[in-house]
Amino acid sequence: MNNTYGENIKLTIFGQSHSEAIGMTLEGIPAGLDIDETELMRFMERRAPGRNSYSTPRFEADRPEFLSGIKDGKTCGGPISAIIRNTNTRPSDYAKLKNVPRPGHADYTAFVKYGGKADMSGGGQFSGRLTAPMCIAGGICKQLLEAKHISIISRICSIGVVEDEGELSEDISEKAFPTVSDTAGQMMQEAILKAKAEGDSLGGVIECTVLGLGAGIGGPLFGGMESRISSIVFGIPAVKGIEFGAGFGASKLRGSENNDAFYYDNGIVRTRTNNAGGILGGITDGMPLTFRAAFKPTPSIAKEQESIDLETRTGATLKIEGRHDPCIVPRALACVEAAAAIAVYDALAGEANDRK
Amino acid sequence: MNNTYGENIKLTIFGQSHSEAIGMTLEGIPAGLDIDETELMRFMERRAPGRNSYSTPRFEADRPEFLSGIKDGKTCGGPISAIIRNTNTRPSDYAKLKNVPRPGHADYTAFVKYGGKADMSGGGQFSGRLTAPMCIAGGICKQLLEAKHISIISRICSIGVVEDEGELSEDISEKAFPTVSDTAGQMMQEAILKAKAEGDSLGGVIECTVLGLGAGIGGPLFGGMESRISSIVFGIPAVKGIEFGAGFGASKLRGSENNDAFYYDNGIVRTRTNNAGGILGGITDGMPLTFRAAFKPTPSIAKEQESIDLETRTGATLKIEGRHDPCIVPRALACVEAAAAIAVYDALAGEANDRK
Amino acid sequence: MNNTYGENIKLTIFGQSHSEAIGMTLEGIPAGLDIDETELMRFMERRAPGRNSYSTPRFEADRPEFLSGIKDGKTCGGPISAIIRNTNTRPSDYAKLKNVPRPGHADYTAFVKYGGKADMSGGGQFSGRLTAPMCIAGGICKQLLEAKHISIISRICSIGVVEDEGELSEDISEKAFPTVSDTAGQMMQEAILKAKAEGDSLGGVIECTVLGLGAGIGGPLFGGMESRISSIVFGIPAVKGIEFGAGFGASKLRGSENNDAFYYDNGIVRTRTNNAGGILGGITDGMPLTFRAAFKPTPSIAKEQESIDLETRTGATLKIEGRHDPCIVPRALACVEAAAAIAVYDALAGEANDRK
Amino acid sequence: MNNTYGENIKLTIFGQSHSEAIGMTLEGIPAGLDIDETELMRFMERRAPGRNSYSTPRFEADRPEFLSGIKDGKTCGGPISAIIRNTNTRPSDYAKLKNVPRPGHADYTAFVKYGGKADMSGGGQFSGRLTAPMCIAGGICKQLLEAKHISIISRICSIGVVEDEGELSEDISEKAFPTVSDTAGQMMQEAILKAKAEGDSLGGVIECTVLGLGAGIGGPLFGGMESRISSIVFGIPAVKGIEFGAGFGASKLRGSENNDAFYYDNGIVRTRTNNAGGILGGITDGMPLTFRAAFKPTPSIAKEQESIDLETRTGATLKIEGRHDPCIVPRALACVEAAAAIAVYDALAGEANDRK
Repeated sequence: MNNTYGENIKLTIFGQSHSEAIGMTLEGIPAGLDIDETELMRFMERRAPGRNSYSTPRFEADRPEFLSGIKDGKTCGGPISAIIRNTNTRPSDYAKLKNVPRPGHADYTAFVKYGGKADMSGGGQFSGRLTAPMCIAGGICKQLLEAKHISIISRICSIGVVEDEGELSEDISEKAFPTVSDTAGQMMQEAILKAKAEGDSLGGVIECTVLGLGAGIGGPLFGGMESRISSIVFGIPAVKGIEFGAGFGASKLRGSENNDAFYYDNGIVRTRTNNAGGILGGITDGMPLTFRAAFKPTPSIAKEQESIDLETRTGATLKIEGRHDPCIVPRALACVEAAAAIAVYDALAGEANDRK
Repeated sequence: MNNTYGENIKLTIFGQSHSEAIGMTLEGIPAGLDIDETELMRFMERRAPGRNSYSTPRFEADRPEFLSGIKDGKTCGGPISAIIRNTNTRPSDYAKLKNVPRPGHADYTAFVKYGGKADMSGGGQFSGRLTAPMCIAGGICKQLLEAKHISIISRICSIGVVEDEGELSEDISEKAFPTVSDTAGQMMQEAILKAKAEGDSLGGVIECTVLGLGAGIGGPLFGGMESRISSIVFGIPAVKGIEFGAGFGASKLRGSENNDAFYYDNGIVRTRTNNAGGILGGITDGMPLTFRAAFKPTPSIAKEQESIDLETRTGATLKIEGRHDPCIVPRALACVEAAAAIAVYDALAGEANDRK
Repeated sequence: MNNTYGENIKLTIFGQSHSEAIGMTLEGIPAGLDIDETELMRFMERRAPGRNSYSTPRFEADRPEFLSGIKDGKTCGGPISAIIRNTNTRPSDYAKLKNVPRPGHADYTAFVKYGGKADMSGGGQFSGRLTAPMCIAGGICKQLLEAKHISIISRICSIGVVEDEGELSEDISEKAFPTVSDTAGQMMQEAILKAKAEGDSLGGVIECTVLGLGAGIGGPLFGGMESRISSIVFGIPAVKGIEFGAGFGASKLRGSENNDAFYYDNGIVRTRTNNAGGILGGITDGMPLTFRAAFKPTPSIAKEQESIDLETRTGATLKIEGRHDPCIVPRALACVEAAAAIAVYDALAGEANDRK
Repeated sequence: MNNTYGENIKLTIFGQSHSEAIGMTLEGIPAGLDIDETELMRFMERRAPGRNSYSTPRFEADRPEFLSGIKDGKTCGGPISAIIRNTNTRPSDYAKLKNVPRPGHADYTAFVKYGGKADMSGGGQFSGRLTAPMCIAGGICKQLLEAKHISIISRICSIGVVEDEGELSEDISEKAFPTVSDTAGQMMQEAILKAKAEGDSLGGVIECTVLGLGAGIGGPLFGGMESRISSIVFGIPAVKGIEFGAGFGASKLRGSENNDAFYYDNGIVRTRTNNAGGILGGITDGMPLTFRAAFKPTPSIAKEQESIDLETRTGATLKIEGRHDPCIVPRALACVEAAAAIAVYDALAGEANDRK
């Protein structure tokens, strides 16, 4: 199934970019827990489009309407369901693309998979818009984790070739453009605007850290935290790589360098370094769980591109007009946090069983 | 569930490093397909230990005994089950580790998760030995894919800081040490022996490519090929990162550089470049599906390391004796191919439904 | 998970009786199939309340609003989602029941399971109202099966002690009160009105038959058609028993009486009798697939009943006012057909794999 | 998937009647729990063949060999796996049946489903022999439930037309032929021997009760206890019906008769009657959970039967020789208890989450 995630909770995402609505159902959340909708909206606004000069001008309130599962601000034990109406659709922008697949997009692959019968207006099911319901679910899980003193933070590690410097810490959440180094952040924003001006786009890397997660969450083999997190993070369109802790860098170290030495810090087990990204054998070790996700540059660019015409079966050129982010990374921070929150909440829920 | 993988086929792996046996069941394979056990043994020997100077001297036949699902060399429609007896166990090697968790291993995290009640002898469920049943299943899937003209190849991209050069091609499979550049391969083997001599270990990166997979396999969101492949590849112990196509490198490119232009090549849709690694919107585009997996250096090293004593709750030092690979990467090629074969076979099996 | 069903398709039902809306998502339906919404409404009206003197006067249009997955009357490959607004709720009817659980209802068990924190207004998640989304999904599956020349029919076998006579055949679908014998049907309706007049209620048995389903669908063990159908039919509130073919009656026969002899009927394999209900070893044999489901009498009755007060922890009496069907069976025919359609469609979808 | 069951634990059954072995894996059992193998063998012997004059003379030790998951009599947190070798196979008994499907068996339906390529020797995957691994898993779950003071008992309600009398109580477990009335039990055994002497067979009904299960286990819709239990009980070959509490009988009662009145019994909530079989809204109410399963008569009978020849596509007659139980019901008690134990353990395991 493409649209469901989770073992102990079950998230289902539905909708196409230009269907009546997009939405989600989230089953398995216990009854009686507080959900703060104002806080949820704050979270969702971090991914909302149209907020600044480097994101798409398509502006939508994207306020979820809850249909079930929450009553008087508390979960009631049944599936939480919420929808967002698609009000600001401009299908005409997409009409001309019908037979000419956009390079870097799912147009061609969906054409083959669905035999030309998918509703691809606005990118259909493949639109980044489908991350909005993921953020509803993720925002809820994030709140529920915070009530257990588990927090999730993220930063932009790099945009194109511009890299951030320094260590991620909790106060990053206050920043509108979350880099540790404000200078690097400034350079990144300039790089985005420059790419935009040139009809081009940029990618980047997001780092995400889960703090406060105790040791013992996850499992061996396919139940490892890396498997659980990667399978949802790759559900965010444009993610092409993920690494945990030292990740690809660890492959260049020696065992004596990469192994994280254990020690007791006032009776608490910690490690001197955290190359493992807080995960050993698929199970959390109590150190911050860290990962980085690589985003490709937005494939929709104003520059003319080589493509094909699927009807005439000949070559074609393509200029994409519509409204598109020159760089999706700043808006994707919330999506990465949402994905992490869902995966972590799901894994934690399973522990109740494993220890009973 | 930690031990099951698959949506359209269902793989279950069981066993601990020093239990009576390890094994697997694989459900959902149609009846009447040929399984060549000789070919399967050839595949499994690629991951078997004890074959050369840089792998662990623990030598076991690791010949699977099939218990069901195959009769007279053909599948019969029921679950295929196979076991491998654990005959060459030396638990005494591990006795002294009981209270002192090895850095970089699951000893501590399993201790917390299972409340000290896991069978951790030889690494228990977390041992690399559990990749043997994965290779049984993967070897079967690989054969079944080959019957559909889909092949899976892999190479060592890097060992520590030594990198391979050139493009991966099908003849790589003939090589004992599969690098494109034999010079690089030679340097890698020397680096491994040097690390071993120094009581240390190395990691590396494996590249894997699936050839012959048509367009249209996979799906949006959590059903994407990246999600399906990453969740099983991270099931291989020591994997800490994965990237598809240009991966992390794509995050540094501009959209105009990263987008793969479509063209017709004698009526077949192809792309000029393959930065997407053969996957757009989670669905294959008919180009080679490529990914790279980063392996951390083997955590078991002869050098003395800092750790803790979980009983006395004090610091401790540790020297690991046992038998260990100074670099797991050469043996892991088969595991990565196995994981890819299982994920791809599972995704393909689902397409039968999606198109009906 | 309570709210999801299906292996090859995935149905998720959400909502509470008095939440903003109830609804469903249905994933795994191929793209390009026709959905006739008028026909679907006709199907749904068969379960709609308020249509005659023996069903609850709560009248709602119960017209599903489709949010995604269907465009211009055709499926598009993404999840089909639809909601029904809850407009005619009268929560005050339920306020007084808060601490006094209704005998035969889920009030007490939900109180324990959800710690008193469920939204039980109108029966919450346990309301028969949740069968409306099941009928949306089932109505869609029924149409898709009909396009494959598979039809699903049902009749009322009995209401209370009044039993129908004769054999079920396809023309039953035309009847407003679907019994084979109109005389029996008339007596059943009188029995319902009599029970209603006495502030009481009746149960009954529904027989359902799937016609046109070829041999070879289903599987051994937990994949058998009986397992697949029973697990969804018991999802309909008030069902307390199910039997396939001769069912409980078969337990009283000898093998020589119960075995259905095979013969060739113009080259087609058939059986002389159909005690197996069209299922052998969990797999269809090409004969009509038949089952019967037993419904308990509606637990909401006007008569005074003995209960308890969960707050004061003392005995209490209870008179249920609200609006309730004196017999749910006539409206439940559509639900049983819906459940059968979903289970059969799901099983059929799996066969595409098993035979590939 | 045909061979897997469970949501919070995962049971996989594998093997064919005449393959090397049959077996099971059971994932999700916490570490550190005691498993008494002697007690397990006592449980398994209740379903073992060849113990008396009315069961098949095929006698096998059927002693499970545990391969993983249990160490020194305790679970270790990894999947429990166990196999039973198939040593006493007599495939020649089955050779002549190859083209002539046995009425009432899966021969024909498996032939269609697997295109004639299944391993049907001894009934293949469809053999009652596959209930042995179910009894391994069920015997383990039963022990684990007993440690929580939850017990599962069963009795023979009827064999053919002979019915037991009286109420089921815990001391039934001591009986070799578990009926409440010894007179009825004697008559049943005579009926079986008579049918056997006539080359015929009998079916019957088994009643099973789970005692000590608190209120609040299960859930609405597809997560109800009826759905969970029925889907595994129908996995036992020959089961054709199931009913909970008053079941089909409830359909003949009025609401005022069928509703179980609540009262406080020394502070504990109980119901005056138990027509609900301990389940309201799919959730346990703390009363004994009771159900009855109907078994068809053994289809393998010595009498000549009408069938077909699938090769020549003509009519054929058939006399089954082999070794067969004239009535499977006495041996099936253990299977029904095993199925109930697995379903109940799985549901209980889920509650840990729902209440967290």
